Amino acid sequence: MEQAKKKKYLVNFEPSGLKIEVPKETTLLEAARKAGIYLTSICGGDGYCGKCKVTIDRGQFQSRPTTLLTTDEISKNVVLACQTKILSDMTVTVPASHTLQASQILTDTDAGSKLADKTEGVFKFDPLVRKICLQMSPPTVSDHTADHERLCTAIREQIDAPIMQTGLRVLKALSALLVEADYKVAATIARRGGTAEVLEVEQGCRCKTNFAVAVDLGTTTVVAHLLDLTTGSTIDTEAVYNSQINFGEDYIRRIMYAEENDAFDEMQNRAVSDINNLIATLASRQKIDLHDITAIVCSGNTAMIHFLLNLDPTRIRREPYVASAGSVPPIRAAEIGLRINKRGLLYCLPGVAAYVGSDIVAGVLATRMYTKKTVSLLVDIGTNGEIVLGNSDWLVCASSSAGPAFEGSGVKHGTRAGAGAIEKLSILPDGSVEFKTIGNTHPVGLCGSGLLDTLAELFAAGIIDRTGRFQPKGDKRLTEGDEGQQFQLVPSDSEHQEIVITQPDINNLVRSKAGVFAAIRVLMESTQTRPEDLDAIYLAGGFGNFLNVKQAVTIGMLPDVPIEKIQFVGNTSIAGAKTVLLSRKALDTAEKIAESMTYFDLMSHPGYMDEFIKAGFLPHTDLSLFPSVKNPPTKTL
Amino acid sequence: MEQAKKKKYLVNFEPSGLKIEVPKETTLLEAARKAGIYLTSICGGDGYCGKCKVTIDRGQFQSRPTTLLTTDEISKNVVLACQTKILSDMTVTVPASHTLQASQILTDTDAGSKLADKTEGVFKFDPLVRKICLQMSPPTVSDHTADHERLCTAIREQIDAPIMQTGLRVLKALSALLVEADYKVAATIARRGGTAEVLEVEQGCRCKTNFAVAVDLGTTTVVAHLLDLTTGSTIDTEAVYNSQINFGEDYIRRIMYAEENDAFDEMQNRAVSDINNLIATLASRQKIDLHDITAIVCSGNTAMIHFLLNLDPTRIRREPYVASAGSVPPIRAAEIGLRINKRGLLYCLPGVAAYVGSDIVAGVLATRMYTKKTVSLLVDIGTNGEIVLGNSDWLVCASSSAGPAFEGSGVKHGTRAGAGAIEKLSILPDGSVEFKTIGNTHPVGLCGSGLLDTLAELFAAGIIDRTGRFQPKGDKRLTEGDEGQQFQLVPSDSEHQEIVITQPDINNLVRSKAGVFAAIRVLMESTQTRPEDLDAIYLAGGFGNFLNVKQAVTIGMLPDVPIEKIQFVGNTSIAGAKTVLLSRKALDTAEKIAESMTYFDLMSHPGYMDEFIKAGFLPHTDLSLFPSVKNPPTKTL
Repeated sequence: MEQAKKKKYLVNFEPSGLKIEVPKETTLLEAARKAGIYLTSICGGDGYCGKCKVTIDRGQFQSRPTTLLTTDEISKNVVLACQTKILSDMTVTVPASHTLQASQILTDTDAGSKLADKTEGVFKFDPLVRKICLQMSPPTVSDHTADHERLCTAIREQIDAPIMQTGLRVLKALSALLVEADYKVAATIARRGGTAEVLEVEQGCRCKTNFAVAVDLGTTTVVAHLLDLTTGSTIDTEAVYNSQINFGEDYIRRIMYAEENDAFDEMQNRAVSDINNLIATLASRQKIDLHDITAIVCSGNTAMIHFLLNLDPTRIRREPYVASAGSVPPIRAAEIGLRINKRGLLYCLPGVAAYVGSDIVAGVLATRMYTKKTVSLLVDIGTNGEIVLGNSDWLVCASSSAGPAFEGSGVKHGTRAGAGAIEKLSILPDGSVEFKTIGNTHPVGLCGSGLLDTLAELFAAGIIDRTGRFQPKGDKRLTEGDEGQQFQLVPSDSEHQEIVITQPDINNLVRSKAGVFAAIRVLMESTQTRPEDLDAIYLAGGFGNFLNVKQAVTIGMLPDVPIEKIQFVGNTSIAGAKTVLLSRKALDTAEKIAESMTYFDLMSHPGYMDEFIKAGFLPHTDLSLFPSVKNPPTKTL
Repeated sequence: MEQAKKKKYLVNFEPSGLKIEVPKETTLLEAARKAGIYLTSICGGDGYCGKCKVTIDRGQFQSRPTTLLTTDEISKNVVLACQTKILSDMTVTVPASHTLQASQILTDTDAGSKLADKTEGVFKFDPLVRKICLQMSPPTVSDHTADHERLCTAIREQIDAPIMQTGLRVLKALSALLVEADYKVAATIARRGGTAEVLEVEQGCRCKTNFAVAVDLGTTTVVAHLLDLTTGSTIDTEAVYNSQINFGEDYIRRIMYAEENDAFDEMQNRAVSDINNLIATLASRQKIDLHDITAIVCSGNTAMIHFLLNLDPTRIRREPYVASAGSVPPIRAAEIGLRINKRGLLYCLPGVAAYVGSDIVAGVLATRMYTKKTVSLLVDIGTNGEIVLGNSDWLVCASSSAGPAFEGSGVKHGTRAGAGAIEKLSILPDGSVEFKTIGNTHPVGLCGSGLLDTLAELFAAGIIDRTGRFQPKGDKRLTEGDEGQQFQLVPSDSEHQEIVITQPDINNLVRSKAGVFAAIRVLMESTQTRPEDLDAIYLAGGFGNFLNVKQAVTIGMLPDVPIEKIQFVGNTSIAGAKTVLLSRKALDTAEKIAESMTYFDLMSHPGYMDEFIKAGFLPHTDLSLFPSVKNPPTKTL
């Protein structure tokens, strides 16, 4: 019992080889956090999601009893990391399927990229930050104009806006710089409203060296696009899992964790450091100096933006569900520790309400639904599901708290849209399962589009009924698992475990789609919009590249409209952020969109629960709402 | 030789009793600086002004030879502090006449106060920073507006301007504060141009607790007025000598010193600390929390503003004489270390050119000459002499580099307008000298108005001729002193030294007035303004309360206009700064004034030197310019 005397123990995580020394009785989840290993954890460490399973290869530990482990697992020293205390030095193996790997994230979908390109063209190219070349005539005995005024006059010849700020740092160096540069300089100018600000003055002509980053700060993933502000083109993209994920998979869990542990600074640090890492990666890969990145536009849900700016998010989760701020004026990125140009700016796009954030405003901007006379519907399925309905006259929105099932959470073999994820699946007439994975590698799980296909195909094949329950059909792939009945989609082989879909998985997916459809119904009923009034449905989210939008109708998540009206638009949050970076007008427009959107609080809406229950069937209790869905071969209700 | 082994020596300054430990071979001037004793030093420590005389009572030292000390002084261990190295512990006596004492400074003159009061009334009361009380309705399930937007909406009901900034610090605390305060708060709002900024949000109704400070940052003295921004009244005033004074009496010397010693940070520290000390004194005397001071408006010459903000002032003294900045957008006072509300603002008034600073713009604002159809002349005599001529259509200005003779510098017994200064002097028909001192104490020297009287009275009495030279008249008060001939104004008694005026003193004063008059002539000639076109002459500066403006005409400093047209207006720099604090419109006006003023560079002006030579006589070579000056009883030229 040598170990018992020690106060700190060394934990060795395999296969990464990352090591960390922690005090005795630290939980394995916390040790993993400190080592920088992101274990999946939906419940935030409360021990009831069962996602943070690891295997202890060596060492002493103490685990709380749980029903989430099978006898077999227990015999193999599999534990829940959050429920296990470290009592000695140890070696732990983290299963590949339960580790988040940044390289697996899709930074964008083709659909999203195309949309962004299309949208960018709509606004005049007029980036938030511009570099302009100035050639001033040096002062003479008959022209004593001070250097700062000389600079401002030269700027005003190119930019028609009063200069409200220059910054002491810039002013202090100005005279020597102008003399040295013989009055030929590049000025970096940020615009806001009707005014301008000098961010920097540099010697010589550097006006073509001006970059910016658009960031989609998602609950699960953080995506960054590097833009050249001189040409407007996207140079490179990168993504990373949100490192707050250890504190809970959804943001409500994270707010609770932060409140209980006074971890708001930690939450901010994680968000800032994720963005810094992305920017550093992009800059290094493109051989760009961080100093030449002059702006960041960030969109994200309200909680994420609160965490990033370290605003108080606690009332987001308490009635009457209020944010500290919907719209935050731009700040210097350095003020929160973001490493770009020292005077570079961070613009956070404006949000609408506690549960409809700036990612959704960005989506409205990107789809241009706010410009159309006809009514469009935007459905963004991410960790939450947000819905916007409207046209150029009105916009209504709501958030369905149905959970991130289509992001793979709460689904046994769910995974994000990354390498090895099944993104396309069909059940052939002979009953066999055909699928395609991202990167065409061995399947590791099911991403959003794969889950949608699975649900629709199981239903179409009559393997599940309209209530989502497995039908007793004598299919040998239907077995009893730890969580009840499960259907084997991919059999195991010598190297890989089988991939199944379980009854709880299906229940979660149905609940999720029901939440979305109920929200759509409430918004449509409230605005007296009939399905035939819908001119377009935009489906946004990180589903994967092969989303079969028809399946979203088949399961009853989207209204039954002609298929050509439904468009998968990918990550509209980043598309909107990019649009804003490239056009001041788009920023103004985003602010107007956020102001004009009417938020429906579904929790207090009298009709929502009824709609939710009715939508809890495949496709719906009222089949007349889904005339195009062919009669499923199933027993009657 | 115990002392020689020590590395540091203790210097004891009497009569203050201040002590300082300094390394061996430090000069006494530097030791005095470090001890916080302000020795008069015009040359900045170069050893040729002879102002920093002290007496060494005890201790070893090494002095460079100088012609500025009499044999008598040398025998009494009088040394030039700047030329003397410390070689042991020592005790040094600083003569009272050569020490600057803050309590001696007049913070204002009656004339200036009256002007300020009059001017303030011209602009609508609309202070730069306002506190407003807000009673918002708390959010409900049917009103989810975020706290920041709720606040902005409430502010916009009272203030019609878009809110461009709120500050992360304010935003971070906002939600908790609003809940705690039941949505009843006071918001501190700063305005700039057409926009607004939230400086602070406080619980409850604190909207009557809002103060600000107007500062005149002069080369010699720093004056501060504490204002109540709720009522617009001036609560208290305080002044201090500019502690940069040890680095040279005029700003050109200080710029040279800073360049040679890389002492720009030190210069800024001194300016900031002088202002901080003034504010701390005012706040403590009036029992006001520094936190409740929300703005500072500062005016001063271009070099002083550069020192304060640590902008590069070096090109002010080099052809073509250019400032780094004339106008600087407001900054947070805390950014340069000023201790008021953490988000409180510092507004530096805009200047015109390297030698016509914001103090002069403040003067134009305070006298309202820019509003009048008729032509006025503003003459501000301080360390330099600045002149503005113009009306509502045009304004021209110039700076005479004639030196600070009327502030008492370069004059043997010159002193500032403080206790004991002779502020009024006449030579009676019987030849006897009659005078009045500030505070009616024993005379210690002559301040501006006393020097003006002395020059005019010596001239009128025929003691000096039109060239300013002493006339051989057999007056026994006319003796040969160390610096040539001198005239005894006040005889010595058992306790006090005599007060004399020397030939070099008179030469300095004549040169100074000649510079001013030549500048006036250049501006008048250039704009074809005749003396009879002048509707008003405003004489500004720290002369003292009993300035006899007629004397300024007698000696030929001001044009010969009817005496009722000449008005002594005191410190217009502080008057203008106060006006701006109390009215946003006045700030806009100051910016317009600064932009519209045309600067004349006298150094490169072809006619200036000729005018300067002609004005080097009393009152002038061309007596027809001074018809009201009675023929002086003097020999012809």
